[in-house]
Amino acid sequence: MTVDNDFASTRPIPTGHTSSRNSIPDRRIRAMAVMAPDELKHVGNELLACMRLRQKYIDLSLQSMHEYLKNMEQASEQSNGVLEDECVFEMVESGVFSVFENQKAKDDGQEPFTKVPSIKEYYMDLDYVLDTISDGPIKTWAFHRLQYLDARWRLYMLLNEREETMQSKMVPHRDLYNVCKVDGHIHLASAITQANLARFMKTKLMTEPDRPVIVRDGQTLTLKQVFESLNLTADDLSIDTLDMHAHKGAFHRFDKFNSSFNPVGQPQLREIFMKTDNFIDGEYFAQITKEVMSDLEQSRYQMAEYRVSIYGRSIDEWDKLAAWVVDHKLFSNNVRWLIQTPRLYNIYKASGQVENFEQVLRNIFQPLFEVTKDPSSHPKLHIFLRRVVGFDTVDDESKPERRMHKKYPLPCVWDSESNPPYTYYCYFTMANLCSLNQWRMRRGFNTFVFRPHAGEAGDTEHLSAAFLTAQAINHGILLRKVPALLYLYYMEQIGLAMSPLCNNALFLEYERNPFDAYFRCGLNVALSTDAPLQFHFTKEPLVEEYSFAAQFWKFSSIDMCEMAMNSVIQSGFEAEVKRHWIGSDYPETSQPDTNRTNVPLRRLQYRATTLEQEQEVVKKMANEGSDTLHPDHVVFC
Amino acid sequence: MTVDNDFASTRPIPTGHTSSRNSIPDRRIRAMAVMAPDELKHVGNELLACMRLRQKYIDLSLQSMHEYLKNMEQASEQSNGVLEDECVFEMVESGVFSVFENQKAKDDGQEPFTKVPSIKEYYMDLDYVLDTISDGPIKTWAFHRLQYLDARWRLYMLLNEREETMQSKMVPHRDLYNVCKVDGHIHLASAITQANLARFMKTKLMTEPDRPVIVRDGQTLTLKQVFESLNLTADDLSIDTLDMHAHKGAFHRFDKFNSSFNPVGQPQLREIFMKTDNFIDGEYFAQITKEVMSDLEQSRYQMAEYRVSIYGRSIDEWDKLAAWVVDHKLFSNNVRWLIQTPRLYNIYKASGQVENFEQVLRNIFQPLFEVTKDPSSHPKLHIFLRRVVGFDTVDDESKPERRMHKKYPLPCVWDSESNPPYTYYCYFTMANLCSLNQWRMRRGFNTFVFRPHAGEAGDTEHLSAAFLTAQAINHGILLRKVPALLYLYYMEQIGLAMSPLCNNALFLEYERNPFDAYFRCGLNVALSTDAPLQFHFTKEPLVEEYSFAAQFWKFSSIDMCEMAMNSVIQSGFEAEVKRHWIGSDYPETSQPDTNRTNVPLRRLQYRATTLEQEQEVVKKMANEGSDTLHPDHVVFC
Repeated sequence: MTVDNDFASTRPIPTGHTSSRNSIPDRRIRAMAVMAPDELKHVGNELLACMRLRQKYIDLSLQSMHEYLKNMEQASEQSNGVLEDECVFEMVESGVFSVFENQKAKDDGQEPFTKVPSIKEYYMDLDYVLDTISDGPIKTWAFHRLQYLDARWRLYMLLNEREETMQSKMVPHRDLYNVCKVDGHIHLASAITQANLARFMKTKLMTEPDRPVIVRDGQTLTLKQVFESLNLTADDLSIDTLDMHAHKGAFHRFDKFNSSFNPVGQPQLREIFMKTDNFIDGEYFAQITKEVMSDLEQSRYQMAEYRVSIYGRSIDEWDKLAAWVVDHKLFSNNVRWLIQTPRLYNIYKASGQVENFEQVLRNIFQPLFEVTKDPSSHPKLHIFLRRVVGFDTVDDESKPERRMHKKYPLPCVWDSESNPPYTYYCYFTMANLCSLNQWRMRRGFNTFVFRPHAGEAGDTEHLSAAFLTAQAINHGILLRKVPALLYLYYMEQIGLAMSPLCNNALFLEYERNPFDAYFRCGLNVALSTDAPLQFHFTKEPLVEEYSFAAQFWKFSSIDMCEMAMNSVIQSGFEAEVKRHWIGSDYPETSQPDTNRTNVPLRRLQYRATTLEQEQEVVKKMANEGSDTLHPDHVVFC
Repeated sequence: MTVDNDFASTRPIPTGHTSSRNSIPDRRIRAMAVMAPDELKHVGNELLACMRLRQKYIDLSLQSMHEYLKNMEQASEQSNGVLEDECVFEMVESGVFSVFENQKAKDDGQEPFTKVPSIKEYYMDLDYVLDTISDGPIKTWAFHRLQYLDARWRLYMLLNEREETMQSKMVPHRDLYNVCKVDGHIHLASAITQANLARFMKTKLMTEPDRPVIVRDGQTLTLKQVFESLNLTADDLSIDTLDMHAHKGAFHRFDKFNSSFNPVGQPQLREIFMKTDNFIDGEYFAQITKEVMSDLEQSRYQMAEYRVSIYGRSIDEWDKLAAWVVDHKLFSNNVRWLIQTPRLYNIYKASGQVENFEQVLRNIFQPLFEVTKDPSSHPKLHIFLRRVVGFDTVDDESKPERRMHKKYPLPCVWDSESNPPYTYYCYFTMANLCSLNQWRMRRGFNTFVFRPHAGEAGDTEHLSAAFLTAQAINHGILLRKVPALLYLYYMEQIGLAMSPLCNNALFLEYERNPFDAYFRCGLNVALSTDAPLQFHFTKEPLVEEYSFAAQFWKFSSIDMCEMAMNSVIQSGFEAEVKRHWIGSDYPETSQPDTNRTNVPLRRLQYRATTLEQEQEVVKKMANEGSDTLHPDHVVFC
């Protein structure tokens, strides 16, 4: 069992090798040494403290799913003509915008009405979490509880598989293909399949050869000239020449993977076909996007949350992106947007595009405050933002991060060539979301969540930062190395949009992926494709991702429907849409409906009861630290 | 490495556990103890003897690919109006038809002109092969040579990967999607995807509810009545209610897998929708088949060789099947047929449908001799047979086979309730193909090959019988347990149409499948789907099969193109079609063309040279048994 072997590597207890992927790790059952009541109390208190810390940040940034959906619902009732607000905003602390009631209040020295935790507080809280998850008794306890959740699942399945199947067959119309699935982690630039991209480029080269498409060295080149300069004809274009698939050479080579985004290895072609802001105003990329959206719409039950980039190199990126989306009418009921901000300050600095890190943050967030104050200041952006559900942060997590002394410099004085660490990026995203969302909620505008890439590679500290600041994450495969944090992710039901086929190509071989172990333990896991252009082969990448998982781990149709349900729960689609997809009472009661999800009531109850009991155990333990709370005493439902 | 662990289980040499699927099994390099010249000579002679035995049967049954394609080419030049032949046929030896020049020659007691090896000779030869592959020195030698082929491949790849990729990019137009792929092992009744079958049934129920479709207990029922009797409405129909997917319950339960062929677990629905011979003359199944064929044609580069059943329960099965194909015009350039004969004599006997085994053989083969003598006796069969490329034999190989004493009874006296063993079925198929093909060749008709299911489960003896009698096989996963036989399959380049996703559901978990090890060693392996209805999830089952293999084993695009090329080589499509797909000189010189296969010249040369040298080594060893032939002396190309 993958997850156990990996847990084991963080644990001092000697463990045997389990040969089959399905065997029960019986030799490790002894791992739970009898703990003293004091120790149990300590464990309970620390875990609760960590959960309270997360709650603080999620509350301040208005990221709880309930709050998020409520705001969105209010926002949709909002009339279109919104006047300018009298509130004013300013970057009071470096890197974080604050909002004041009005100019006078600000001039009078009143506090801003937006509440944002300070960076100092954030790093202290982060340290607290890091200390907690590396505490011996807490690690042992969490490891044991995860084993218990796994064993309880196996027992549940042995006893209920038949009944579940019967219940599932009774649900009319629904099956794996007729339940809603959201691809919650997919990059727009990689959403098209290889075969379709090759065909698209070929068609353009044949039908619009003389169209000017790019400027190079002061010269405007036509499409034909570009291909001629690359010594390529339409007939040469194939998947092989495009060479965008993450083949075996990409394993542990994120740099190679990044350069695979260039068709035929040529940045020109990427600029012409895959960019929103170029000589042809992103027209080709808009056409590609429409094709992709139309395929989604035809599938009827597949949705996607596409990532598009805001780099933070200049202040007009938002307006350009919004104009691209609005002018090309890139709207679909099946699609919502996430903004990905690459962590590339060091590159921009080295090439002289920015002075310091504050400038990056200003470029990323200032337009959002401006449009919140006065929608007419960026009318297209205002329209676009209604379909934006949140922020992501992306780049190679395995890059080494330079450790600073005790304190990191503020963004205004971060002008060295080195890149801020992941945790620092997280803070400033969350902090600006606090003030932005608080203001937008007052204004009746939809708010945004933070759903970063975390735990794909690199330092597991990233996952602790995400625990405090993010509503949900992408990947999270490294959680398997940190049982206490994995346990906290379970307790908080933090969504994980996982892409085992992507991991298989880049960081972790399929058979070692912890997806199935997470699923058994009851984490809120869903499958997503990440980048069909690089990883998938069929015309149905999301189904291919489900197929691989189902066949390799022998998931049942019910398991897959549960994952699909999770993908809806994690997503940023509106409350009324979620009600339609997974249950009429869903956002209010958190109770999905069997008739819409095709997940049998028994399974839904098992998951809910198990989680409730686990929360109960931790709470009681913190209060009493009593031996009577020994986990084995928890009865099965 | 899967194959090594499994080889190891048949070997006396203690071996270590190799933890990663890609590690080099260095600890076993010592396995090749220095052999005495006498021993080497013995090994060489025995291996050559086995190969000569195979050649004898393949020659007599006209199954060499070269011969097969030549006959087919002559047959296509044949005019349509063929007169009755004056030759006459008769079952002289029980179970095997013989053909005489004419009635007089037969009456005069002349020998038949058809040459068929006797069953006694066959079983002696089979014993010879079985003895050889269990001979100690031969096992050691084969095991070592397979290790060597594997190591040589790894070395080749390390040194040539870059050059191969460059060569592959130079091939215009071609890539994985634009090279021809034959699904060489797929059952027609399972060729439709689940989603399409559910949709088809739903549409029929809504548009033709009052059509009489089946007779039960003397009553003719309409489609609506059938569904009412099952308590099903159109809205209930989903993948879940159909329940035809081989979910986890099918592992090592071939019986469960077999019953999964019944939609909603109901044999009535199977009869109505999935049978060629029923109350509606197989009309629904013909419509389904047309849909499947039309999807294939749209894919342009995908072909299929569909299995349809002849049971041998009655003499008119052939005419009914042929009428179904011809009347419904089920012809496609992308499709050829194979006849599968289920090994179910014991069932027919128990239910009183046949007297003895000879009757089954008569039912299967007599109409073929009749139509060869006089095409006008079965005109539709004559037309159908032009698109039939060969025979398959199917059933659960893992069923225990009752061993007989020294000799098996002849078919005419095989009237007990027990089923003949696999090897016996093989003999009678091959023996009748000898006389049938010899006659058909003289007549200028196309001939047939034998491509049985072998080595999916059960006794590895099946693989030895197939080694003697079959042109190619399906599955062959158990070859990994018999290194000497695996080595012979390599030397003879016997095609293996493998379906790792099917194996994963039924008999062998994906990570233990030897497909990748076979591929590295240079066996003639291709990927096939077996039964998309039961195993696959996307609308492109064959691409899904390739995708899974490529992602799990990290095959390159070139590797996949080589597998696609192998699938064409193994297939029964006509020579001119093969020339078009893989190279203008292909059938004549066995040299595929890089421009059509997208397999780089370097790879083609590596495979050819490696095989030639290996054949050379064995030949020289047999002649000289000399130490100078120590395999390590073979230079790399």
